[in-house]
Amino acid sequence: MGNTFGQLFRVTTFGESHGGGIGVVIDGCPPRIDITEEEIQRELDRRRPGQSKITTQRKEEDRCEILSGVFSGTTLGTPIAIVVRNKDARPEDYGRMKTTFRPSHADFTYEAKYGIRNWQGGGRASARETVGRVAAGAVAKKILSILHSEFEIVAYVAQIHEVTAKINRSSVKVKDVEKNAVRCPDTAAAKKMESLIEKIRDEGDSVGGVIECVVRGIPPGLGEPVFDKLEADLAKAMMSIPATKGFEIGSGFVATRMRGSKHNDPFEMRSGKIRTATNNSGGVQGGISNGEEIYFRVAFKPTATIAHEQRTVTSSQEQIKLAARGRHDPCVLPRAVPIVEAMAAIVLCDHALRQMAIDLPGRSK
Amino acid sequence: MGNTFGQLFRVTTFGESHGGGIGVVIDGCPPRIDITEEEIQRELDRRRPGQSKITTQRKEEDRCEILSGVFSGTTLGTPIAIVVRNKDARPEDYGRMKTTFRPSHADFTYEAKYGIRNWQGGGRASARETVGRVAAGAVAKKILSILHSEFEIVAYVAQIHEVTAKINRSSVKVKDVEKNAVRCPDTAAAKKMESLIEKIRDEGDSVGGVIECVVRGIPPGLGEPVFDKLEADLAKAMMSIPATKGFEIGSGFVATRMRGSKHNDPFEMRSGKIRTATNNSGGVQGGISNGEEIYFRVAFKPTATIAHEQRTVTSSQEQIKLAARGRHDPCVLPRAVPIVEAMAAIVLCDHALRQMAIDLPGRSK
Amino acid sequence: MGNTFGQLFRVTTFGESHGGGIGVVIDGCPPRIDITEEEIQRELDRRRPGQSKITTQRKEEDRCEILSGVFSGTTLGTPIAIVVRNKDARPEDYGRMKTTFRPSHADFTYEAKYGIRNWQGGGRASARETVGRVAAGAVAKKILSILHSEFEIVAYVAQIHEVTAKINRSSVKVKDVEKNAVRCPDTAAAKKMESLIEKIRDEGDSVGGVIECVVRGIPPGLGEPVFDKLEADLAKAMMSIPATKGFEIGSGFVATRMRGSKHNDPFEMRSGKIRTATNNSGGVQGGISNGEEIYFRVAFKPTATIAHEQRTVTSSQEQIKLAARGRHDPCVLPRAVPIVEAMAAIVLCDHALRQMAIDLPGRSK
Amino acid sequence: MGNTFGQLFRVTTFGESHGGGIGVVIDGCPPRIDITEEEIQRELDRRRPGQSKITTQRKEEDRCEILSGVFSGTTLGTPIAIVVRNKDARPEDYGRMKTTFRPSHADFTYEAKYGIRNWQGGGRASARETVGRVAAGAVAKKILSILHSEFEIVAYVAQIHEVTAKINRSSVKVKDVEKNAVRCPDTAAAKKMESLIEKIRDEGDSVGGVIECVVRGIPPGLGEPVFDKLEADLAKAMMSIPATKGFEIGSGFVATRMRGSKHNDPFEMRSGKIRTATNNSGGVQGGISNGEEIYFRVAFKPTATIAHEQRTVTSSQEQIKLAARGRHDPCVLPRAVPIVEAMAAIVLCDHALRQMAIDLPGRSK
Repeated sequence: MGNTFGQLFRVTTFGESHGGGIGVVIDGCPPRIDITEEEIQRELDRRRPGQSKITTQRKEEDRCEILSGVFSGTTLGTPIAIVVRNKDARPEDYGRMKTTFRPSHADFTYEAKYGIRNWQGGGRASARETVGRVAAGAVAKKILSILHSEFEIVAYVAQIHEVTAKINRSSVKVKDVEKNAVRCPDTAAAKKMESLIEKIRDEGDSVGGVIECVVRGIPPGLGEPVFDKLEADLAKAMMSIPATKGFEIGSGFVATRMRGSKHNDPFEMRSGKIRTATNNSGGVQGGISNGEEIYFRVAFKPTATIAHEQRTVTSSQEQIKLAARGRHDPCVLPRAVPIVEAMAAIVLCDHALRQMAIDLPGRSK
Repeated sequence: MGNTFGQLFRVTTFGESHGGGIGVVIDGCPPRIDITEEEIQRELDRRRPGQSKITTQRKEEDRCEILSGVFSGTTLGTPIAIVVRNKDARPEDYGRMKTTFRPSHADFTYEAKYGIRNWQGGGRASARETVGRVAAGAVAKKILSILHSEFEIVAYVAQIHEVTAKINRSSVKVKDVEKNAVRCPDTAAAKKMESLIEKIRDEGDSVGGVIECVVRGIPPGLGEPVFDKLEADLAKAMMSIPATKGFEIGSGFVATRMRGSKHNDPFEMRSGKIRTATNNSGGVQGGISNGEEIYFRVAFKPTATIAHEQRTVTSSQEQIKLAARGRHDPCVLPRAVPIVEAMAAIVLCDHALRQMAIDLPGRSK
Repeated sequence: MGNTFGQLFRVTTFGESHGGGIGVVIDGCPPRIDITEEEIQRELDRRRPGQSKITTQRKEEDRCEILSGVFSGTTLGTPIAIVVRNKDARPEDYGRMKTTFRPSHADFTYEAKYGIRNWQGGGRASARETVGRVAAGAVAKKILSILHSEFEIVAYVAQIHEVTAKINRSSVKVKDVEKNAVRCPDTAAAKKMESLIEKIRDEGDSVGGVIECVVRGIPPGLGEPVFDKLEADLAKAMMSIPATKGFEIGSGFVATRMRGSKHNDPFEMRSGKIRTATNNSGGVQGGISNGEEIYFRVAFKPTATIAHEQRTVTSSQEQIKLAARGRHDPCVLPRAVPIVEAMAAIVLCDHALRQMAIDLPGRSK
Repeated sequence: MGNTFGQLFRVTTFGESHGGGIGVVIDGCPPRIDITEEEIQRELDRRRPGQSKITTQRKEEDRCEILSGVFSGTTLGTPIAIVVRNKDARPEDYGRMKTTFRPSHADFTYEAKYGIRNWQGGGRASARETVGRVAAGAVAKKILSILHSEFEIVAYVAQIHEVTAKINRSSVKVKDVEKNAVRCPDTAAAKKMESLIEKIRDEGDSVGGVIECVVRGIPPGLGEPVFDKLEADLAKAMMSIPATKGFEIGSGFVATRMRGSKHNDPFEMRSGKIRTATNNSGGVQGGISNGEEIYFRVAFKPTATIAHEQRTVTSSQEQIKLAARGRHDPCVLPRAVPIVEAMAAIVLCDHALRQMAIDLPGRSK
């Protein structure tokens, strides 16, 4: 019962990696938003495997179809259902998974929770599940662009293993991110990351890293204390993405080593607006956006599927050795960039609509 | 509209730091759980200011009263309302706050969001808001203890500024935590932390740090993919606590610098149970508990209120200098320990009840 | 877990008839709405027992206190907690209820559900529970009045047992309703009803009836198909009031004996607006308000508590005879009028806020 | 944002009458429930048009496909997505509907709410929307059968216009209902109803009526006061079905003319169980099931679409005359029977799961 996200922009995803298909129902999308399958497809294509030599070579066409909620290219205000059929199913590849609990995968826990699991390719725990999120994120971005003309969201790979990028957070653009396969706008670092990933893949191993995301053009006022604070919902959104281990906003864990006198963001007037001189807050104070850039970082663990031989246990409690075969990403981060963006857009869109519901018309603040 | 947390164990808090009172309504608490005001009070007392020289000297009695849902010391299954009256109100202390936006506080953002705020002592954004959370956490702990006899939750201060504690996560007990004012079970580190906090306070400054929390005795199976994953709900819970900037579970951000072959937790048989040899996963895999210790870390920023003079802006957009007066915590972490525990207990209790709702009776897994 | 109502204007009630107190938390109330304890008290006073000779003579002062969410008479946008202390507790009156299941009361079902119940005076199943609803309704009415200047809501007793009133639904005002103790604006019928209720009370019996409610000034567009249709939420709201057995909107059950050619409401232009010539729809079409008067009727059963001797069973499964003692309403309808209004206002307010969340600014329809 | 129903058994429907397709996502279905497309199809076929001469002759194949959540015929505990493609689209039939507001349809209100509508065949307001409900209802029935072996649900037509059936509520079976096209188990009445419907159709008019539903085998204890009372959720469920105007449970509106001494259901011991001697309560007391038969009645208005010429208005506010062409049901009730059953099953299944979440294991009541 945990497959719906959001209060007003409600995203419900469904689907296993193998089976009829995967998709999303978006309820609460305002009417008269122009949206096409092509726009959604464009975002899905960023997430798709097989885009470059550093990602898995599985062919997933991932053609989306809008089943409802859109009429002549415009939203109706009714639920938008988007489906992507599963095509590349090769259950024979997965025979052994039926009884084997792969280390640091969800095989064991799904079995423990449900007493059953779709053992073909990860089932619901597969990263393929994020197709629906990315589709919903495309719609969320459209709404945010209409509500806030300056709205812009850019996620990028900031670190892979020990390779750290240097990125000007305030000027980086999506096109800078998309210019290389690793989705790191620091070209020099990107090259190192790419080499590293290839090397790691050749060694049958995997690596993790950090994705940073910056959102611009969000006005002050979004976020609903005390539980649905903006950073709390962003944290949940990010920590619900497969393979994530940590989240930090603004100064993050670095704040723990700073003094208040240094960490506090002084207010000042700038271009006639109340602004902060620094932005350790990451654009959110007391759970509510303050009009500054919102930025946060997400930690991804190394991919659990590796070619290395590993110890594990079967469902009949036999201790065995396992080595993955088949096609796998040695590093999920490049493909996770559009997922991070999508989830951030969903959170912000939900909060933008929530704010509309408390702003009585004709009342200036 | 963000003041309710949880799906089945639903916690709704209310109250500003100044005004009639503060409290919580818990809906969905199973019937026939023994609970007394004393038990709740005990947890509230841990959160209360004025406990030691390193915390603020405000006197808040914080006596809780159960208004409903409990009959002769036992829960009825009806909503449990718990109220703590506000007593120590000194609005005159806060006169200047009416028009001043304190740096890195929520004054500006509340004003931006609502067009109004209770400027007395922080209002809803005050850490006093967490009283209701701690009360609900006390109830959640009771339920978890009944459901899982091995259940145990221990949070503690792991780091203050640059002082890091050495703690055996698997053996640390609440009594180890409670033996000093700073709530750090490493006595040597605790002393350094205490000295540091006193020094920082004398300098009119503040510091942050890290609270770690470990939960034992949670069986495999809790967590609801894909959005209400256990770590996602824990992340949201923690990031909704005032002054938090980051969350990590298991290996956390360290995972980003590890290889998969090292990071994966091999399964093995131990004492007749399927266990993991290591626990980089932090007790959660694919969003579901795996029966191992659940542990996570929360980053707290330095307290925003400092005696240092700071630049800021008034509601009439005038640039001014501000220095806090009055009684303030130079470091929130010691008092935040029971809050972290409470929120973790609320998340786990909610998921324990959710799991009950999908386990059909008489079906072995 | 069923004590919260509404999606955006979220009303959570708590409290048993005996115990510390009873009340409500309203989350999602927009900021900067003027509201005072007096306004809320006025509505509570309409619901209060002991108002006239035809209602129970219990003295319940029911003084409400706003604990939070209102600052200097204005809402903050934070949760509004309103508490009414329980005072008139005489548990000794209720001794026998501990083991006796009163016919057509909730004693047996609460015991069956929870394995425990507060047997003092009905506990959570007491009509006293509606105090919180009426308080929240007072706030909802304020918001609706601000959003829609023509907004007006009038509920009244339309039938008691076989006595049926003649009321001009389109012109009746609250003052017409309040001018007699039975809350029936047809004075002649009101007198008959009053005599009937006194007679029935003297006979130790009870009667039911019908409350009708009309809402004016709601613009077209409120209601959220397909499940949260306006009439669906109104039906749920009304059927959640104690003692209700039926709900009908517009033509209601009479529609089942009409032909479509007669039942359909033709559209026509009137004063430059699209209006319907008749209003069998009751102001709602396809789950959405159409700008006409919304009207509906609610069936109340005769009060379950009667002085007549009745057969029943104890918790130890002994068959016994029971006759109620003490103070009881022979007819709940007069006091239920403000409850019906309150629940209708809560539904409409919730939907008004929901509509705000899909109306993008600057877009004409 | 109103397209999800249920708290734990969460049903989200999507789809317009014309467009890619229509369907449902069920979240919260327990794992390891056997369910096949055939079982779902069987229920869908009962709802399908073109089944007999008294229903519309449109051909809708309505073949359902399970896209996810079911693996080798068994539920996984993950969301179950079921899709039915739209096939019989003839937009040319609907050309005039683009600008015409059909009386007592949702054309005007959808336009008023959203500023746009899918004018082809009713769009989201079409009764075709209920396909998803019926599919979900089939799953709900399976779960209820597993939880409660005596569970049985039977809905039937009890009245069409002035023709009223005589039905033994306690013995009627689904096969009695399915034996005629009008779905009325009183054969004599069914014949009259059938003749009436044909006559009405020939006259270009339509009729409404009453569907009664009885549920057996539900144990005491389901229902969540104070807002999610069983009858409140049933009322909402029923009033969300297209064309409904009223709902009553147990004695319903008849109760308003009874005295308490007659209406109360005395408790008695029967076969070692606490039972009620009569069942005016309709199986629910204080919002919670009492173990007796649950029965309720739903009023349906005459179909809005009629061949009769009617006055109406266009979107450009021109007053015109309109007469429906094409294929329409002169009476929706026969096809609404499986929809009523489905919605009742969804409500009861949701409450059955909710009850599991408060029943701590190993505690007898």
